[in-house]
Amino acid sequence: VTPRPSLHLLVVGLGRVGRRLLSLLDESHDRLPFTWSLAGVCSRSLGVAFDPAGLDAADWRGATAMGATRAGAGTAAGAALLDEALPALRRECAAGHVVVIETTVLDAARGEPAIAHVRTALDAGAHVVTANKGPAAFAFHELAARAERAGRAFLFESAVMDGVPVFSLATEAMPGVRVSAFRGVVNTTCGYILTAMERGVPMATALAEMQAQGIAEADPTLDVDGWDAAAKAAVLANVFLDARITPLDVSRTGIRDVDPEALRRVAAAGQRLRLVSWGRRDGARVEVHAAPVALAADDPLAVVSGLENALYLATDHLGEVGIVQRDGGLTQTAYGLLADLTRISRHLAR
Amino acid sequence: VTPRPSLHLLVVGLGRVGRRLLSLLDESHDRLPFTWSLAGVCSRSLGVAFDPAGLDAADWRGATAMGATRAGAGTAAGAALLDEALPALRRECAAGHVVVIETTVLDAARGEPAIAHVRTALDAGAHVVTANKGPAAFAFHELAARAERAGRAFLFESAVMDGVPVFSLATEAMPGVRVSAFRGVVNTTCGYILTAMERGVPMATALAEMQAQGIAEADPTLDVDGWDAAAKAAVLANVFLDARITPLDVSRTGIRDVDPEALRRVAAAGQRLRLVSWGRRDGARVEVHAAPVALAADDPLAVVSGLENALYLATDHLGEVGIVQRDGGLTQTAYGLLADLTRISRHLAR
Repeated sequence: VTPRPSLHLLVVGLGRVGRRLLSLLDESHDRLPFTWSLAGVCSRSLGVAFDPAGLDAADWRGATAMGATRAGAGTAAGAALLDEALPALRRECAAGHVVVIETTVLDAARGEPAIAHVRTALDAGAHVVTANKGPAAFAFHELAARAERAGRAFLFESAVMDGVPVFSLATEAMPGVRVSAFRGVVNTTCGYILTAMERGVPMATALAEMQAQGIAEADPTLDVDGWDAAAKAAVLANVFLDARITPLDVSRTGIRDVDPEALRRVAAAGQRLRLVSWGRRDGARVEVHAAPVALAADDPLAVVSGLENALYLATDHLGEVGIVQRDGGLTQTAYGLLADLTRISRHLAR
Repeated sequence: VTPRPSLHLLVVGLGRVGRRLLSLLDESHDRLPFTWSLAGVCSRSLGVAFDPAGLDAADWRGATAMGATRAGAGTAAGAALLDEALPALRRECAAGHVVVIETTVLDAARGEPAIAHVRTALDAGAHVVTANKGPAAFAFHELAARAERAGRAFLFESAVMDGVPVFSLATEAMPGVRVSAFRGVVNTTCGYILTAMERGVPMATALAEMQAQGIAEADPTLDVDGWDAAAKAAVLANVFLDARITPLDVSRTGIRDVDPEALRRVAAAGQRLRLVSWGRRDGARVEVHAAPVALAADDPLAVVSGLENALYLATDHLGEVGIVQRDGGLTQTAYGLLADLTRISRHLAR
């Protein structure tokens, strides 16, 4: 029996996702292939808490966590935590047992501060798992190369379709397969809004429901104007099509200007309007889009409704393969982080 | 750089799938993480060919392979090859570098001769990869335990949905997730027949097309009477639900008695009739079925048409997750075997 590796976790940007991860780790304790301690946490509102011997995770699972030792760090909290924690955990970093969990609020136009946190962590010898799209959308190749040089993991399974395994499907479960194109409905808020509008619900009402459920981005224009769908398209293109793009390079149309009457006419004709992220490689050329598309009734993306997501990959050996997420939410996103931690521990156990 | 492990392959039951695997290995030579030699092949019609130094694979890729050294072994060819080859490859077996690729024609009522071949191979220290449903449908737990004791792999990714990663999705890409139920359209022939019948094509005509394309089972009653769907349900139940069943324990209804008029009425009402394999665990009780089901238009299985397959898993951490195969066929099945070989080589490279 291989001993279970022990991981020292630093949660940068402890919010709803990070807190759900802490409770999921607790609920899963009997089936984790690793042991863990919470070495540090930070957030804009909580400030910074760090103890190399381990904080009491139970103190940090609740929605109103108490006890940050150094409050008031604001947006610099992530840098403050990493600057303090990584040198103090130098030996644990050298052994490959430190993981930075990056879940800060993202500046979608630049991918920061997540990218800076990823660089700092990898350069200090920590692994990184992130639910943020920013790092892989803006700097995938740079960060993957940095991780490779450091001999550490840079994983972001939660960045697209929550914890449903999009990236490990290709890298682990379909070894040697080449992806030439992708096509998906991967923005939950817009999928929900368009489905609701088919029933005559106004866009603003549907958006308000998504905000109330905590599914819409903090700034809902990121959903409605297609930025989230474009950022996910950039991640998928960078990873699957070896593209070197940022979300700014994605041809992008949001759903803000979708006319309710036109949408109902499309639906009455048996079609479905969905915000589709797609990309394809054709020789040296890669094109990547995020835009509303009228889908024929027999298109597998046309049945993706409500809170569902789906992604189809065009591959050489397997033809078109799809993966579908029928339920999305906080637990799924937190599970994606947990699955990435498991991948790191499996690697350490070898 | 890890050296690429070298694998000695024994193809038991060299038919269309085995030949496609040999050509796919050739086409993929620049991206395989292993090297390989074809140590032996056999089939009912070809007899047995074995050379510990390696046969010329090019001789065996064609539809009319020539040169079997000992023809006429009939159904005992598999046992004859293994009895000769495994002792001769004793040292390679001990090093974990021999893989038996099991692709014989299956006796669907018993799972033989595949199960006997798997036992013989594992007990001699060879890994086993198989495209046959029989071993996991009739004897999954016994064979998995035997592989575990021997420290060898028993892999069967191709047994359900060709090479689309059903089993590695759960074991590799969704670590720690528990599956409580599954539900899928996984028999291509019946899916095609029911889709064609919606257009008014007679069942016999659609079945003849599937036979002409080589997709229907050699004995088409295995498809039409639901045996294939039941065998796949048994595999899925044994692997995902920890059931201890055989296909004979599956509640089974085929499509032979589907009334064309009733099917068109279902279709006219916006529903789709599909042969669904499903199972669920409820405490200590597991129930497993294969039967035609009228699916509502918004059911994700309702859009699975023609040659498509799809499987949905109910999980604890991720809710319902689906995987969809839009194209099926010989290359997909052969790729599943190649992916299993890659898994073995990844393990050896550690």
